[in-house]
Order: sequence, then C-alpha cells, then structure tokens
Amino acid sequence: MDTKKIPYKIYLNEEEMPQFWYNMRADMKNKPAPLLNPGTLKPCTAEELEHVFCRELVKQELNETDRYIPIPQEILDFYKMYRPSPLTRAYCLEKKLGTPAKIYYKFEGNNTSGSHKLNSAIAQAFYAKEQGLKGVTTETGAGQWGTAMSMACAYLGLDCRVYQVRCSYEQKPHRREVIRTYGAQAIPSPSMETEIGRKINAEYPGCTGSLGCAISEAVEYATKHDGYRYVLGSVLSQVLLHQSIIGMEAKAAMDKYGIKPDVIIGCAGGGSNLGGLISPFMGEKLRGEKDYQFIAIEPASCPSLTRGVFAYDFCDTGEVCPMQKMYTLGSQFMPSANHAGGLRYHGMSAIVSQLYHDGYIEARSVGQTEVFKAAELFCRSEGTLPAPESSHAIKVAIDEALKCKETGEEKTILFGLTGTGYFDMKAYEAFNNGTMSDYIPTDEEIKKATDLIPRFPGNEF
Amino acid sequence: MDTKKIPYKIYLNEEEMPQFWYNMRADMKNKPAPLLNPGTLKPCTAEELEHVFCRELVKQELNETDRYIPIPQEILDFYKMYRPSPLTRAYCLEKKLGTPAKIYYKFEGNNTSGSHKLNSAIAQAFYAKEQGLKGVTTETGAGQWGTAMSMACAYLGLDCRVYQVRCSYEQKPHRREVIRTYGAQAIPSPSMETEIGRKINAEYPGCTGSLGCAISEAVEYATKHDGYRYVLGSVLSQVLLHQSIIGMEAKAAMDKYGIKPDVIIGCAGGGSNLGGLISPFMGEKLRGEKDYQFIAIEPASCPSLTRGVFAYDFCDTGEVCPMQKMYTLGSQFMPSANHAGGLRYHGMSAIVSQLYHDGYIEARSVGQTEVFKAAELFCRSEGTLPAPESSHAIKVAIDEALKCKETGEEKTILFGLTGTGYFDMKAYEAFNNGTMSDYIPTDEEIKKATDLIPRFPGNEF
Repeated sequence: MDTKKIPYKIYLNEEEMPQFWYNMRADMKNKPAPLLNPGTLKPCTAEELEHVFCRELVKQELNETDRYIPIPQEILDFYKMYRPSPLTRAYCLEKKLGTPAKIYYKFEGNNTSGSHKLNSAIAQAFYAKEQGLKGVTTETGAGQWGTAMSMACAYLGLDCRVYQVRCSYEQKPHRREVIRTYGAQAIPSPSMETEIGRKINAEYPGCTGSLGCAISEAVEYATKHDGYRYVLGSVLSQVLLHQSIIGMEAKAAMDKYGIKPDVIIGCAGGGSNLGGLISPFMGEKLRGEKDYQFIAIEPASCPSLTRGVFAYDFCDTGEVCPMQKMYTLGSQFMPSANHAGGLRYHGMSAIVSQLYHDGYIEARSVGQTEVFKAAELFCRSEGTLPAPESSHAIKVAIDEALKCKETGEEKTILFGLTGTGYFDMKAYEAFNNGTMSDYIPTDEEIKKATDLIPRFPGNEF
Repeated sequence: MDTKKIPYKIYLNEEEMPQFWYNMRADMKNKPAPLLNPGTLKPCTAEELEHVFCRELVKQELNETDRYIPIPQEILDFYKMYRPSPLTRAYCLEKKLGTPAKIYYKFEGNNTSGSHKLNSAIAQAFYAKEQGLKGVTTETGAGQWGTAMSMACAYLGLDCRVYQVRCSYEQKPHRREVIRTYGAQAIPSPSMETEIGRKINAEYPGCTGSLGCAISEAVEYATKHDGYRYVLGSVLSQVLLHQSIIGMEAKAAMDKYGIKPDVIIGCAGGGSNLGGLISPFMGEKLRGEKDYQFIAIEPASCPSLTRGVFAYDFCDTGEVCPMQKMYTLGSQFMPSANHAGGLRYHGMSAIVSQLYHDGYIEARSVGQTEVFKAAELFCRSEGTLPAPESSHAIKVAIDEALKCKETGEEKTILFGLTGTGYFDMKAYEAFNNGTMSDYIPTDEEIKKATDLIPRFPGNEF
C-alpha cells in the first residue's frame, strides 16, 4: 500500500482534524458492567454521580449508545494549540534494528504537561466551566495529570486544587512548580484542610501520604464545597472517550497514506492511553470490518491484566469512589517502587478490562530494566527521550519488530508514545548507574491483596 | 494579506522544507572582522583553526561569499526527525492581551534537547564524522548544548566528551543524566584529565568550576588527542549559518500564507538563535528588498550589546580560543546569578555585533522578574512553559503588542521561542515564591571588566 512516500512525521491539516470522540461502548456487544454504589451495591444513578463529577461528564460516563460525540468548539480550539500530535515513522529505529517491519508511533508529549493527559484535562475543565463551577479538585502522584489539569484550568480561568502525595510534593519539586506556575494550588496530602487529612495526620504524624489518601481528600473537598467537582485522569470511561482523539488522529493520518497497522501497542496503567489509541481501530474490529492485533503492556511490578482478577473492586485505596468491575490486584495492593509512576495502579479501565476479557486485546507484562534498555535504544536512534510509562510500549514494539526480522514479515506496527521523560531523570540515573531494581510480586502477595476484594452476590472471582 | 485563514500552527511539508542554509555574510557590506590568533594578533589561518575545529566547519567559518550552502542529505534526514518546528499563531495570547497585533512564534523546543541547539549540533557532529574523527569535545553550562551535542553524537555513533561545570554537574543532575542517557560522557570540570584541570584543582582544591575552565579543558583534550576536535554551540559564524534553518522555515511558512512580519524579536546570549531566526529576513533588508524591524533582547544582568564595547576580545575566560571582534563586557566579566543560563555570555556573535553596529538591529535589555512575569502569562495562555532565555523575547513581544493596543496598529510580530523550561523549575520556584532577584551591574563593574580587554593597535575602543 506504500504508494506515496511516507514522511517521517504525518501531520493533519486543521480541516482533517477529527471533530468527534469515538465511544467504543456503542460497538461492544458485552458492555462494561455499571459502576456500583459501594454502600448499596446497586448501580450508581446519575444523581449520585453528580455530587462528585460534573453533570455532562456523568452523562458521558453513562453513555453506552452514542457512537460519536461531537467535540465542543472550545475544546477543538484548545486542541489546536498542541494537536494534531505527530504520527512518526521510526525510520531510524527500524534501521538500527535491521527489521523489515514498519514502525509508527503517535507522540503525545509535545505539550508542556508532557503527556496525553491534557486531552482529557481540557475536556473535563471545559464541562466544569460550562456548568458554572468555580473550580475542580484532583490528586496527582507522578504529576502528569496534575500538570495537565492545572494547564487546562489556567486556560479557562478555573480554580484548580491538586492534592499531591506529600512525598512526591517534597521530593519531586519540579512537577509541583509547574503546577504552581500554571496558577493551580498544589497541596501536600495528607493536608489539614479535610477531615480525612486531619484524621490521618493525627493518627500517623509525619505521614508521607498515598494516592488513595489524596483521592479521598480531593473528593471530600469537592463534595463539601459549593461550586467544586472532582476530576480523574484515567480509568473512567469518559476519559477513554476524550482520549479517543489519539486514535482518531492516528487513523486519519494512516488512512491518508493508505497504511493499515497490523499490531497496535499501548502501555496500560489505568488504560486511558491504550483505550484512546486503539479506539477507532477497535471499532472496526468490533463491527467485524477489519482485524488488528492489540497488545496492552503493563509493568511486571503491577500486572493487573496479566495476574489480576476480573471483579468489582474499589477504584481508590480510600474506598470513597464508586466500585467498578475490572481487572484488579485489589485496592490494597501496594506495587513496589517502580519508576513508571503512571502505571502503578491496581485496577484498569472497565472498557479495557471487558475487551481483554472478551479476547479482543492481548496483554503482556515487562520488567523495568528491559524497559529502560528499550528507552535508551529509542532515544539514541529517534531522538526523543521517552517517559518510563511510554517505554513499556517501546519495549514490545521492538520485540515485535525483531520477530519480523527473524520471520521476514513486513508487519506495520503502531505504538503510543505517551510522553517525555524530562521529569523522570532520577529513574534514568538509576538505570545509567546500573542500580535499577526489578521486583516482581509473588503469587502470595497478589493473593493476599486480591483476597481483600469484597465478595458479594454477583462478585464471584 | 490575510486572505487564507491562518491556522494555529503552520507546518511545512517535507517538500517545502529548506534545502539550504543562508549565509548572511554574503549580503553584508561590512563583513565581520576576522578571527585573530591571540599569540600573533594576526588573522587565524584555516590551518591554525583546523587544529581545534573540523575542516569543513573551518571552511564555513571563513566563508563570506557563498550566499546559500546546501544542507547535506544526512543532516536533512536528521532534521526530519524533529523539524519543521511549528510556526505558531499566538491567538490565545493575543486575546488575553486584547491587542490588534498578530503574534507568531517559531517554537524550537519540540525535541528532547529542549532547544534550538540541536540544529547546529547535528551539523557539527556530521562534519566530524565525515572527517573520520573518533569524537568531539565540548563544554556545557546550563546544559542545553551538551544535551544537543550528545543526542547528535548518539545518532552518528561518535564519542562525545562534555565538560560540565562542576557545580552544574552536581546541582543539576537532570541534564547530566540526559547527557549520559544519550551515551555521552559528562565530565565534571575542572577534571584531573587535562593539564589545565589538574592545575586548577591543585591551586583551588574543591573548585566548583567555570565555563571558561570547561572550554579550556575541552579544547586541550581535543588538541592533544588524535581523532578529536572541539565544537561550540554559539557565537561562531558557522553556528549562525546552521541556525539559519529557523529563519528559513519561518519565512517559508509565512510566505505560504502571505504574511510579512513587521517586527522580529529574538533573545541573544551568544547570538545563535537571534542570528538564525532573522537570517533570511535580514538578507532581504541587506539587499534593500524589504524592511523589517529587528530587536535583540538580552538580560539586564549581562548586557553586552546595550552596555558593552565593540572590540576584539577573547571568546572564553580561559583565553585559549581565537579573539573575535564583537560587543563584549570583557571576558573576565562575571554576570550575577541569572537563571537564564544560556544568556550569561560576556560577548556576542561577530555577525550580530556587526549588524548591530551598522544599525540593522536594535537591542534592549530586560530584568529577570519582568521576564518571568511574561513567561507566566505566556504559559497560562499558550500552554507551553518557556525557557527563561526564550522568555526574554516573549517579554518584548508582549510589550510591542501592548503598544499596538494603544496605537491601534495591527503589526505582525514574530519572535523566537527557543526552548522549554522543563529543566528550569528551580528558577520558576524562586519566581513563584517571590524570591527572585534582579541584579543590574553598575557602570563601575562594567568599566572594570571592559578595562581588562587587551588593547593593541587596531583595537581602540
């Protein structure tokens, strides 16, 4: 199909840019199971969810039928500031590998938030603004989501309160200062401004915090203050909807040159990048129009798809959010220190989980050191220094390309390069010094955490 | 001229990409004065320069006649990995300012080196490789040049030895690790592997180093080891030649939409970005074809154009490099701690100096705090968090746009956004905390430093 010469980077013109998000659920025969109210164990109503989330976002969360959702003009305008993101042909990497495979990557790190998170941040901020809210609350661990949210809120003039896990607030001051520069408030969690924060500070003086605690604080602040709602950067179906822009653009760019990917690879933490990248391709597969191989890559240290159970579980360690049916290691699972902070999540998007359960997606887990080896090879040939999260996808793209070298197949591989590693140089330092560790949880550790998942009628696993 | 709708970002197709660098000297009536051998005070011969620099680069350094230099195919191929850089219409900033001015910026931070430095790094690495050299040596202070050079050398498989000022090596580990990740050697300077390094370490135990010392070490290593040459990231005329790609692309993109800038603004440290950005526009002005207003912006803490003298001076504090006629504060001038590390240079490109001397360029100096205020406004409206260096240009672009608001003029402003501020969050932290300082050197301090510039027949100032 290579009739036209494929440039290094394929951009779309403004008129070629997608105007719709694609909602995979509309084409799924088995829909993801509904969110449950942890108190009643009944499906959450829109009204219940609207105490926590913006009205329009609740609609999107519950929308299983509309295939295409028009992207509001204001969001399209914002997208134009940093989108289309380039679809890049990895000519240099192909050459270094000596592979007949054709490798493409969709690079989402071309904005100061440094990752794809901005695609959903601007959407969530827009709907908050449209609802007439004063501001939003959220949490951040590694910092990509907090950065993206603060950027989006700066643009729209919304207040943004980011509860940042205290150890990250203190030990990773760079991300904190990016958040502050965008005019958002970075609040070390546990703080003294919420009930749960005060309680934890009293019980554990000097506590360095956790993502679970930060979520609980953000939700509490939002539900107790007029004009605030809580926003979340992954896992939710609304987030995958917004992130479908990645796949929509990638598909439009490939279609423009008559390219059909054989294998599509994405790293998966909560599933927002993977779900977004594969969306329109998966739509074709679900409708039986075309076939693709989809591969989700997770860290061996936090292998929810490959070693977790498919069950209803809490989305947060604080157990204040709705329960979701997903592949999970249990909300009390504590992943070992893995530098790919964005992949240290115990659960997985309900949509990705269902698709994996139904056999539409494969999953693989990879160790940290081999991931950084791939990152090093990639940056030395392609120039871009990738985020550790993205490097999981790079690792498997390289594996697949090397298989093609053996078999002689000329497969077309597409992977998601979610972001840059500018703020991860501590991890690279450990790799450069040969002091990186590769901890893989034992079966006992995983069993211990999954045994704590609540069991109730309909939640057998 | 706005007949077509101007997109947020104007990209060039591969076939629209410039194939030539433009050599401003070919159109200058008053050529820059030749480099002098500091020992003989006579113009440096090609042979003398070839002990330090690559052969082909010496030719380019001395070439005052060829208007266009073809860019070798290998460099064009590398450029395709991260170029064209986007020419962006600052619609959001314009709206926030309420100005009738049209503001465009050419963004050079879309690559992991984070700045425009890569444009010359790959050229210099290419000619070193072509000459059959084993590797190159260089120095780095703020770290952008060291990063860019290590990236280029990784691509071509050249050894790269980066002498990094020791205090920067120890206090800014992130840049050091980027350099190492690309496979280059980062060596804290003063080191024990050169004569000058050992001498300084013996005289001043625990010395934290200086850029001058790092240059001396890099030059010494290159001249004493077979197969090595020294490379420099700014100031030299060859560097401006390579950086002309910025202006060539910007002009091609503007011409595509029939846009003619009235004012062109660039920050100026050694002059590489400014010289590159203005190149083809200046060519038209020099040939009397069109008129433009050019403004060079420097930090008030290191004001070589606005407060220096026009004289032959050493390019390095170690006084080992050739002497150059330029605007200078004296090679012994010590700028106060200014976070825009890339602008802390005592001198200026000979080409930019001559053009300024002949009245083709204006110069202004701006204080650090007002620069960061402009950076904050820019990032909150345009999304990209700019490097402190680039923010000097932003400050003046905003000033000019606000003047248009008063007068009602619809001027078209173009400025260079040389890089991102990812590695400058310490400076942003000081700004966010209100603890940033604004030191402006006194007339006495400047006189003291310029008095140390060597005087000899023909070097009256």
